Amino acid sequence: MTEKIPHVVIVGAGFGGVAAMKALKNVNVKITWVDRTNYHLFQPLLYQLSTAVLSTDDISFPVRAMFRKRKNMDLFMAKATGIDGKNKILHTNHGDISYDYLIVAAGATNNFFGMENVEKYSYGMKTIQEALHIRNHALHMFERANKQEDSEEERRKMLTFVCVGGGPTGVEEAGALAELVAVQKLDYPNLNFDEVSIKLIEATDRVLPMMPDNLQKYTLDVLKKKGVEVMLNTQVADCSEDGLTLKDGTFIPSRTVIWAAGVRAHDLASTIGAECDRAGRVIVEKTLQVPGYPEIFAIGDNAHFLQDGRPLPTVAPVANQEARAAADNIVRMIKGEKLQEFVYKDYGSMATIGRCEAVVSWGFLKIGGFFAWVIWMFLHLMRLEGAHEDITVGIKWFWNFISGARLGRIITNIRFEELEK
Amino acid sequence: MTEKIPHVVIVGAGFGGVAAMKALKNVNVKITWVDRTNYHLFQPLLYQLSTAVLSTDDISFPVRAMFRKRKNMDLFMAKATGIDGKNKILHTNHGDISYDYLIVAAGATNNFFGMENVEKYSYGMKTIQEALHIRNHALHMFERANKQEDSEEERRKMLTFVCVGGGPTGVEEAGALAELVAVQKLDYPNLNFDEVSIKLIEATDRVLPMMPDNLQKYTLDVLKKKGVEVMLNTQVADCSEDGLTLKDGTFIPSRTVIWAAGVRAHDLASTIGAECDRAGRVIVEKTLQVPGYPEIFAIGDNAHFLQDGRPLPTVAPVANQEARAAADNIVRMIKGEKLQEFVYKDYGSMATIGRCEAVVSWGFLKIGGFFAWVIWMFLHLMRLEGAHEDITVGIKWFWNFISGARLGRIITNIRFEELEK
Repeated sequence: MTEKIPHVVIVGAGFGGVAAMKALKNVNVKITWVDRTNYHLFQPLLYQLSTAVLSTDDISFPVRAMFRKRKNMDLFMAKATGIDGKNKILHTNHGDISYDYLIVAAGATNNFFGMENVEKYSYGMKTIQEALHIRNHALHMFERANKQEDSEEERRKMLTFVCVGGGPTGVEEAGALAELVAVQKLDYPNLNFDEVSIKLIEATDRVLPMMPDNLQKYTLDVLKKKGVEVMLNTQVADCSEDGLTLKDGTFIPSRTVIWAAGVRAHDLASTIGAECDRAGRVIVEKTLQVPGYPEIFAIGDNAHFLQDGRPLPTVAPVANQEARAAADNIVRMIKGEKLQEFVYKDYGSMATIGRCEAVVSWGFLKIGGFFAWVIWMFLHLMRLEGAHEDITVGIKWFWNFISGARLGRIITNIRFEELEK
Repeated sequence: MTEKIPHVVIVGAGFGGVAAMKALKNVNVKITWVDRTNYHLFQPLLYQLSTAVLSTDDISFPVRAMFRKRKNMDLFMAKATGIDGKNKILHTNHGDISYDYLIVAAGATNNFFGMENVEKYSYGMKTIQEALHIRNHALHMFERANKQEDSEEERRKMLTFVCVGGGPTGVEEAGALAELVAVQKLDYPNLNFDEVSIKLIEATDRVLPMMPDNLQKYTLDVLKKKGVEVMLNTQVADCSEDGLTLKDGTFIPSRTVIWAAGVRAHDLASTIGAECDRAGRVIVEKTLQVPGYPEIFAIGDNAHFLQDGRPLPTVAPVANQEARAAADNIVRMIKGEKLQEFVYKDYGSMATIGRCEAVVSWGFLKIGGFFAWVIWMFLHLMRLEGAHEDITVGIKWFWNFISGARLGRIITNIRFEELEK
């Protein structure tokens, strides 16, 4: 009698998916990993791709290289389109996949809160494609402004870069853009850099909400020093090709609005049919199971997990810990053991504000400045997949540190027609 | 009385354009550099981008970083659309530019010799975009074949890669593809690699025509050892999404046909109105001037320069030497001196066939193998623009040398819809 090997399907190659796969690597199960790409994207460094510090290949790692030569693991590169929990089937655009256990780690996408014009005219920053679009567009704006000798108004519009959202993504992007501008200055001797403006817009009265007050203030000071104009208590109402309209009616002329003001879960989570929160996250049980579907686990950006009366934040450490807990619970289910309840351990958070500047908040350690930046760098290098990437990124950072150079300042739109606009 | 500073316009940021700019850097002229991109592309390594060895940013260098802080030099990023030699005007999609002297170094594009289906269904390899298309498509074919469990015929079609053209580009591409396949083998334990086929098709009876006979034979041996099937005396008649039809009627099922069988000059050259050869190259005078337009110099892939009864080949050393000669003649014209006739000095040629294998033919030195490969590597690192690129590429090559790793095996189509095909 041969026992049937359980089939675990993991959707998503983000932090949650990778951690789940690693946790199940040596368990006697068949694993099918479903993702629409063939790589794990290291999202925390996406802002460095969008500002020409790093290249595409530096922050993306081929999924298959993580489970070489294992016959019981495979990647199924496809877009997951729906979940039929009753029949235990995952629908994809390349056909259906039956599962015994399903881990939904499909990640998040931009949340434009229903503002269609913002979706249409602003630049999201969740994928490699979006980050490259920002890079190409921002660099192109300098070329365009340099040719625009007649109209200061047009030049200023092209040279105004607006980041919306005062979380880590918005702060990091604004800081990195300010540094990119400093490099560009060397290359455009005929352009007046007083016409360049970088704005960070935040709806609440603070940036980096997870940080203590003094580090929030420190962050504001550093951004200001870098030339970023931070606009707190400011809400966006509308967007067009020519700029941004605020709730109070103010119009900010700009050709570049970068949206880092919110995320929502991938649509897949909502197709299970279980209750979701407003951001599309499945309200999971303490075991991370989806209510009514004990074989389905939702984790990371796809899960709404209540702890201490609040849902856990959509950050990488949550996805990592949830993935390991879900994998562990699947093993328990296979063995017929009692499942364990998940408890998130918060080790703190960090964000970088630019070269030599970061803030770190870990328990008693709450610091900002150069040392925090060194910690940030070291930890990000450790967390990157692949020794390769570590070396390349390490060298590029070192080079950037000593020379401020930005290797990736090339405009590589797929279609040349776009450059003519 | 102020003397008017002559305005030199250079079209193209390839080898010719860069060499012309460098030759004129310290001359008292105003220089406007026109290119549709903002970077110099190191075309000899494009095949390494298309086969996931290197990244986009490794082989492209921002043009502006070459002439920092110089107010009398500027890049005008635009597509040059036509030349009005009578009125000394260059037309671009962003407006007209008047010149006193014009250097046409706009480079070359694929020559499909009028075969529309080949143009439509095969993959060219002259730009970053084309190289990335090849990379994305080839990697995607492995994912598709891995899912195609039912049909060996479909799988074989997906896993057959055809390079057309036995010049350096075709040979290098075929060799690099064979090595990419070896890496892929580790990642697809469920795929039968006997179904993979790499073919190199050449119309004449030899590859690398510029090499001596024994090195041509050596190249054929190395390609064979790497698993490349070389088909000499074989001409292409037609192409479709499903494969390639040869002149003798044979059909080769394949989803990937890479076209490296010919180039023709950029259309710009033909707009001058001077006589061109069949590949669109202007038949220039001994001084590199365009007949009838003494202020216009055509160089590199845009020039048909007769020497010893044959036109010079369209290779980088020719473009470099012609650029320096054209720049020198412009200086002579400004000074009212007699122009000099150009004579090309052929130092030989080289090509790589893969990791640890290359052929070099320089005067008496005619070798193939590891030492030739070391020379090839060293010279290519030297010729790359930017210390940055040298270091990154050097490390990637070293890593590739010891581990065979391919960092860039990620599929990054701009539109996810393409992945669904």
